[in-house]
Amino acid sequence: MTDSPQAIDDLIALMAKLPGLGPRSARRAVLHLVKKRAHLLIPLADAMQQVGETVRECVNCGNIATDDICGICASERRAIGEICVVEDVSDLWAMERSNQFKGRYHVLGGTLSALDAVGPEDLRIPRLLDRIKSENVTEVILALGATIDGQTTAHYIADQLPGITVTSLAQGVPVGGELDYLDDGTITAALKARRAI
Amino acid sequence: MTDSPQAIDDLIALMAKLPGLGPRSARRAVLHLVKKRAHLLIPLADAMQQVGETVRECVNCGNIATDDICGICASERRAIGEICVVEDVSDLWAMERSNQFKGRYHVLGGTLSALDAVGPEDLRIPRLLDRIKSENVTEVILALGATIDGQTTAHYIADQLPGITVTSLAQGVPVGGELDYLDDGTITAALKARRAI
Ligand SMILES: [Zn+2]
Ligand SMILES: [Zn+2]
Repeated sequence: MTDSPQAIDDLIALMAKLPGLGPRSARRAVLHLVKKRAHLLIPLADAMQQVGETVRECVNCGNIATDDICGICASERRAIGEICVVEDVSDLWAMERSNQFKGRYHVLGGTLSALDAVGPEDLRIPRLLDRIKSENVTEVILALGATIDGQTTAHYIADQLPGITVTSLAQGVPVGGELDYLDDGTITAALKARRAI
Repeated sequence: MTDSPQAIDDLIALMAKLPGLGPRSARRAVLHLVKKRAHLLIPLADAMQQVGETVRECVNCGNIATDDICGICASERRAIGEICVVEDVSDLWAMERSNQFKGRYHVLGGTLSALDAVGPEDLRIPRLLDRIKSENVTEVILALGATIDGQTTAHYIADQLPGITVTSLAQGVPVGGELDYLDDGTITAALKARRAI
């Protein structure tokens, strides 16, 4: 950018890497930040530093946490014996917003993908199998997207768990749809109508 | 957000205040930041802090600067005697991208607006009149949006400047359009075809 301060150019370039922001919207966002220096720019810099220093992955389930164990895994109010398997933390959040599931989660960190060469050991699948043995799990709910990779992953996991009830979200998940984009009612309906795989 | 760390909720709430991001895209952006902790989150926090500490308004023209005087006002390569008046720094950047104007700028910080009760003293108009006296200005180019408020502002400024050549961007600026959304070619054409008010 001609004659604009280097610090501004650097900030624009970094902001443009955020999902949903391109170069133009990054420029607008940065100008907005400069105008709202005290009320937005400084608090945002502090909040990012805070997250950078405190936030990590739960060693048990892969959820976002500020301790080794996340709030859900540590909570005594969550039901023992039910694990809901999701692809990503955003899906865990979507499930939590529907406020229906009272068990614990397991965040895979993606789906199996032949095309992208993602195998079971690239995801949190070995850790899931360990948990199912050690946590007295009676039902595994697979809340994976209705994509080809999501369904491949669901069947792979179900095959690893003979003797365990494995269900999946059914009614309401649109074909090709991603969980994070669904409204709470659809997730509630899909959870209630879950079926054995 | 149920059971997600407070630092994450705080960061999402702040990100959602950026133009172009709502609650959902703010959540996605924050998850992306957490995943790219070393390569994006920490550099972004540092860049914001850097901008917060170093960036201010040019006391002469209102442009973004790291000193009291911005790079354009301080440059000896910019033509003396021509001032291009824009509403906002984003418009200054749009003009600079077209690479046609070699004079200096004056950033009003908005437009006159009866509806929003924005008067001349709320903008950088008094400072503009001072500059025109002290900088030996021979032409003022009004590069304001083709909106009602933009044109009201243009006519108000022209009325304050008897004896000075006041022109405005003409050809190419679509009615109701904002300068920042125009391509470089349109800005170039509009600048070349500028006309006396
Ligand atoms: Zn956990
Ligand atoms: Zn300046």
